[in-house]
Amino acid sequence: MSVLKEINPNVKNIKQLASVVLAREASQISEELREGVRKPYEEVIDVSSGDPHRAGVKPLSFVRQVLAACAYPQLIDSARLPVDVRQRAQKLLGECVGGSVGSYTSSEGSPQIVRRISEFITRRDGGIPSSPENIYISPGSEWSFMSTLRLLVNSEGSPRTGVLTPVPCQSTTNMTITLLGAVVVPYHLNEERGWALQVEELHRALESAKGACNPVALYVINPGYPSGHVQSRKSMQEVIRFVSEKRLFLLADEVYQDCVYGEKSEFLSYRRVLSEMGPPFSDTVELASFHSASQGFLGECGLRCGYVELVNLDPGVMEYIYKVFSIDSSAPVLGQIALDLMMNPPQPGDPSYPLYKEETENIRSTLVQNVKRAVEVVNSLPGFCCQPVEGGAFLFPRLYFPPKAIQKAKEAGVQPDTFYCARLLEQAGVLISPGCENGQKEGTHHIRFCIMTSEKTMEELLRRLTCFHSQFMKDFS
Amino acid sequence: MSVLKEINPNVKNIKQLASVVLAREASQISEELREGVRKPYEEVIDVSSGDPHRAGVKPLSFVRQVLAACAYPQLIDSARLPVDVRQRAQKLLGECVGGSVGSYTSSEGSPQIVRRISEFITRRDGGIPSSPENIYISPGSEWSFMSTLRLLVNSEGSPRTGVLTPVPCQSTTNMTITLLGAVVVPYHLNEERGWALQVEELHRALESAKGACNPVALYVINPGYPSGHVQSRKSMQEVIRFVSEKRLFLLADEVYQDCVYGEKSEFLSYRRVLSEMGPPFSDTVELASFHSASQGFLGECGLRCGYVELVNLDPGVMEYIYKVFSIDSSAPVLGQIALDLMMNPPQPGDPSYPLYKEETENIRSTLVQNVKRAVEVVNSLPGFCCQPVEGGAFLFPRLYFPPKAIQKAKEAGVQPDTFYCARLLEQAGVLISPGCENGQKEGTHHIRFCIMTSEKTMEELLRRLTCFHSQFMKDFS
Repeated sequence: MSVLKEINPNVKNIKQLASVVLAREASQISEELREGVRKPYEEVIDVSSGDPHRAGVKPLSFVRQVLAACAYPQLIDSARLPVDVRQRAQKLLGECVGGSVGSYTSSEGSPQIVRRISEFITRRDGGIPSSPENIYISPGSEWSFMSTLRLLVNSEGSPRTGVLTPVPCQSTTNMTITLLGAVVVPYHLNEERGWALQVEELHRALESAKGACNPVALYVINPGYPSGHVQSRKSMQEVIRFVSEKRLFLLADEVYQDCVYGEKSEFLSYRRVLSEMGPPFSDTVELASFHSASQGFLGECGLRCGYVELVNLDPGVMEYIYKVFSIDSSAPVLGQIALDLMMNPPQPGDPSYPLYKEETENIRSTLVQNVKRAVEVVNSLPGFCCQPVEGGAFLFPRLYFPPKAIQKAKEAGVQPDTFYCARLLEQAGVLISPGCENGQKEGTHHIRFCIMTSEKTMEELLRRLTCFHSQFMKDFS
Repeated sequence: MSVLKEINPNVKNIKQLASVVLAREASQISEELREGVRKPYEEVIDVSSGDPHRAGVKPLSFVRQVLAACAYPQLIDSARLPVDVRQRAQKLLGECVGGSVGSYTSSEGSPQIVRRISEFITRRDGGIPSSPENIYISPGSEWSFMSTLRLLVNSEGSPRTGVLTPVPCQSTTNMTITLLGAVVVPYHLNEERGWALQVEELHRALESAKGACNPVALYVINPGYPSGHVQSRKSMQEVIRFVSEKRLFLLADEVYQDCVYGEKSEFLSYRRVLSEMGPPFSDTVELASFHSASQGFLGECGLRCGYVELVNLDPGVMEYIYKVFSIDSSAPVLGQIALDLMMNPPQPGDPSYPLYKEETENIRSTLVQNVKRAVEVVNSLPGFCCQPVEGGAFLFPRLYFPPKAIQKAKEAGVQPDTFYCARLLEQAGVLISPGCENGQKEGTHHIRFCIMTSEKTMEELLRRLTCFHSQFMKDFS
């Protein structure tokens, strides 16, 4: 008998993810393949998470060279590394306490890196000045999100605190909200309009929360995950007017800001749109914007680093922010350095510039090509319908299942999209995720897969998906 | 007006640390020194945190070489690195998904590293088998502690959940407990007996909680922080009997397990003592043991990695543990690698062994020497009384203030030990921490400083402390 007579009910409320079970099965299959078991494929293609290096995107040489030299400073004397790499490493190490990446930084991050992030934001937003005091570096954007949310959630309040989140959304976002004892208030993105965020739906969602919880914040993801939608300035202005009118805190997940593919799409930060709307919005709407070294061309998920910028927060509130962030010591220092390099890549004239340019352009053209090919192929398959993908790192196509497949899934006690993913994994060695994990409109089904792969992997993935899907539709027609 | 009408009361309950203010002042002084302002010292010595590289301990070459080669795999071909470093890096990269440290691992950590941690634990504990399923890697032991505590704390329960923690203790431990909405139930270590943990005091503390909260766990730190006490097997057995009888979960912070200096002291893990006590204890007492790459000879705080091993947990509870740990993606991969290298250092015969041995022996002998010298010098100063330091990374001497100093501190609105630390910083350029931050018996005062420095830094620190203290005692006598 456990002394844990009562598990924290907020923990109990967290749902087990289907993808966890799928990932375990994928490990099992990989293990069998290693042991020589014959299957119709030689390896599992894992495009279930937005983890670029997992599916064959190569790390950027410049970033890795600087990291190596910071880890082992004797390399700074090595002629094997370009001179700008060595200079950069020297400078970064000079900023580390005790000259070592093994020392903690301040809780909010290395002061010099924080300052340079703030300069990056100012440049990105057309000169609207950002202040270093508003920036907190953390071990990833999920961590920043949880820490920011902590302030907003009154776990003892009655009714509970509510947070509006999109459908579809990251599963971890909703898990975090539940874990902290708050309530998820879902608003639906409009799939038929390319997953656009419609302000009438925000009104509906807020109305629906009446009596059930006390909504204090709106969470948006732009460019959209997993939807691939990129918001227009007009749409963002509507969102800002909505949060201003309803007195909600705006949580803007902007980690895919470098991943915009649509020809007419452009990333605009909420901070910029807010500022350019002028008073009263620009000086009253409270905003937290999240970014990370995990996405974009860097794709350094494993280094675990991101930041949050807080806008228009009361100085009194900022003190509490500082306290919450200072409970954990600091973000990983090599991750902080990667974040810094992402904000400050080599410039024309630097010895590392030509290779950096070539590598990033390759990644960009591969992604553009992958999105095009994947949407094309998926939309050519019967039963699939994929909205245009303007940004982000995923495809999230709708899948119309034959009634027999739905019946079969029901018998197996799983969602139809989970049933499809499990079969795809087993029969074709492709690990993707079921849409039920991200949330979807009642009666609709989707699958999700990452498009950050090499072109070769994408072609093989699409080939396997096409074969499998034809057979699946035949089997259940 | 902020939309944050009501800050989470658990956040409001967190106290601002005096050390945060002191650290800001230290940065200010360092900045002034850089700008050429003349002071009686040329630089600030920062021994306020247990951050070895900060105060001049050098990183281990083997560890840093492997990390560099993992970050930039082209180095694996470099003749500049020893062959065992290159082989190790090759092997570790082969275990990374996609061959990159930029990919996430599983939430619980790289499966191979988890397995090797479990093998390390088995070796350390004289062959008592450890199971990889019970081990979760995380971005530092504080993070593991918070995640484990989440399960134990019922934020909606009435009365609140209580956790017994020692006085003195890490300030972040108590902050975490407060943040999660639980209540700190302090038990005092016996300073006069070298900060021993006495089981009668645990009974008293538990009794004191009656009516106020519902205690579910006992937190112990061994080797002690900041006390420097190392528990005997007998004392640990008493603790285990106590938690067994009172049905408490045992949280054992064992991050200083490599730092034992006392001639008669030996580190024993709670897991080992528990197992060797046999049934009913060995198969019923629920235990979480925390360890980290930040302490010991590695001192890689900035890489942010640690692990928790969970013993005797109900399989049903382990499922919730998995959920809580899987909300955040994974610990930093380079940190996980450092943890692995800590558990599996070079062996006799390996090319890196001689240098590794030399470096670790240097660190060890420096620490032993530093402890000896620091205790000797501090105990020679009037008003100071330091207990023997058997382990850990700190000195925590008691300081008997002259009444005039206490009066002066009162006038300044600070605790006497904070007053002392602020003056020491300003006048002698030494940053240490006041004992009030760790908790101390009413009416007693202490200071805390890290002894993980180079011998040279320690001598200079002791020189400055001696001069300052003589003047301080004169000024307030």
